[in-house]
Amino acid sequence: MRNESIRGIQSGDDLALARLISLVERGGAHVPEIMRTLAAQAGRAYRIGVTGPPGAGKSTLISGLTTLLREKGFSVAVLAVDPTSPFRGGAILGDRVRMQKHYTDEGVFIRSLATRGVKGGLTGTIGEIIDLVDAAGKDYILLETVGVGQGELDIVSHVDTVAVVLVPGAGDSIQIMKAGIMEIADIFVVNKSDLAGADELVNNLNATIDLGRKQERWRIPVLKCRSDRNDGIRELLDQVLKHRYLLESLGLLDERRGRQRLQQFRSMLEQKILEEIRSKLLADDRIKDIGEKIEKGEISPYVALGRVLEAGLPLSSLEKTCNRTEKRSKK
Amino acid sequence: MRNESIRGIQSGDDLALARLISLVERGGAHVPEIMRTLAAQAGRAYRIGVTGPPGAGKSTLISGLTTLLREKGFSVAVLAVDPTSPFRGGAILGDRVRMQKHYTDEGVFIRSLATRGVKGGLTGTIGEIIDLVDAAGKDYILLETVGVGQGELDIVSHVDTVAVVLVPGAGDSIQIMKAGIMEIADIFVVNKSDLAGADELVNNLNATIDLGRKQERWRIPVLKCRSDRNDGIRELLDQVLKHRYLLESLGLLDERRGRQRLQQFRSMLEQKILEEIRSKLLADDRIKDIGEKIEKGEISPYVALGRVLEAGLPLSSLEKTCNRTEKRSKK
Repeated sequence: MRNESIRGIQSGDDLALARLISLVERGGAHVPEIMRTLAAQAGRAYRIGVTGPPGAGKSTLISGLTTLLREKGFSVAVLAVDPTSPFRGGAILGDRVRMQKHYTDEGVFIRSLATRGVKGGLTGTIGEIIDLVDAAGKDYILLETVGVGQGELDIVSHVDTVAVVLVPGAGDSIQIMKAGIMEIADIFVVNKSDLAGADELVNNLNATIDLGRKQERWRIPVLKCRSDRNDGIRELLDQVLKHRYLLESLGLLDERRGRQRLQQFRSMLEQKILEEIRSKLLADDRIKDIGEKIEKGEISPYVALGRVLEAGLPLSSLEKTCNRTEKRSKK
Repeated sequence: MRNESIRGIQSGDDLALARLISLVERGGAHVPEIMRTLAAQAGRAYRIGVTGPPGAGKSTLISGLTTLLREKGFSVAVLAVDPTSPFRGGAILGDRVRMQKHYTDEGVFIRSLATRGVKGGLTGTIGEIIDLVDAAGKDYILLETVGVGQGELDIVSHVDTVAVVLVPGAGDSIQIMKAGIMEIADIFVVNKSDLAGADELVNNLNATIDLGRKQERWRIPVLKCRSDRNDGIRELLDQVLKHRYLLESLGLLDERRGRQRLQQFRSMLEQKILEEIRSKLLADDRIKDIGEKIEKGEISPYVALGRVLEAGLPLSSLEKTCNRTEKRSKK
């Protein structure tokens, strides 16, 4: 069944792709094997990130980009990351609400992903899922993330071009600076440009860009859009393709992806180790005991931490455990 | 100097408090010692969290709450967490921009904190900083965090009452659900209630609350505010105090704080271990070598991860290292 799906992906079967994404989302020992099998096929799709605050019209914008890319004959995958309650789990918004008009188009693959309470906003398996979609032969991957603040900064680790979507009124120039989005944006989109304050926001963005680091190769463009009326979408796609051409022609795309792969490797490795540690800590009697005392207020977390570190962490068999887990997963 | 600051905190010296916060923010081996020394004094301040999207008027709201609390004779500390660029570091917004009118009031302590690229939105040392302020004898701590999406969900781990501030137009009911804020809010504030859509937002919130989990003890109130005209701030404080009374009279406050302390202990311990692992991994020749291959594209991150786990992680001396670090910090 798993091998069938892997073969299915290789022959462009979207159902097989959806099944594999679900498998990877659920996690488990077989994921590394799947990813290793498909690794050689990834790396051909161009990855576009669209991020911004809730209500900025990102989904409509992505729908418009999808239409244009389809007109050019490209296959498209849309991945929408839904911030999910850490208390409840599971994406609340299904695929149904978005992108209605593309549902009957076989050249468009649409998928909502849950963040599953992973800190930083993007699901911990987003890198793997993008690679799966890539291996399935899609030409363009559009990744949508919600939130301006912290979470969306991660998007820069997973895509080639980042479009940051803002709306007038949602934040003045100080808030633009605050959110740290200046460094991740390759393109700014001021959406709902009919609202009051649109020109001011455009001017603020331009001024902030000009004040920032030198941009010899790429001056971040600031575009006005009205995604509800399809205004400005073509200009946005033009800028994306211009950015792509620049990255590719200067060899910067390989560099960017190399850094992303390295970062992905490091975070997967850390995640793997952290999981082992967490289960060991939860199972350790000494830690359980001290945890109860902390909850009751008999000892402060700081005093407790000092004692645990002084006595030595219960991690001596960690090396062996990681080893064993991996071997189990390979059979 | 450090001991002087600790004594200063104990006698209510705000300059000493500011110095200690800076020390803790910078991190380092002496932090656990400082925290242990002051641990016994923390736990008396009441902690109010105010969160919401950029531009929702949180700072103005907090300024209004501060005025009211000061009128009642309470001392107040305002901690504002600025999401900061992970590329640049350091809070961009200084304390100066906010809370101007309270700067000359000795009963108000104001501090902006950087998130320093820590995932999840809140600075990794926020728990420690709140405890410092608490130990300094403040009656109320107002914690402001920016962002709707993921980051602000962390606020629930650090405060007693969470007020979620929304503005009309920034998000419809689907987006309220999406953001996962329903589970963290103790109070909803619809700010800028003169804007179109305010009543609709209030109705949506009320409907969603009624649809949600049973609220026998506390039905989340939805308040309308115009923080710019100081409308509704008194009602907000009333609800906060009502919530406080409920938590305290039913013994729920101790429970909530117990869980928070346990969570803080676990995350500090994990963080400590992760730091050790990270430095070991970065220094390990085998990992460096494989990292270069990944960057060049000679091996995929997935294949690399498999190989590293198969060969065993370079962590055998971890236990001893943690032990040593801690001892060093105690002299």
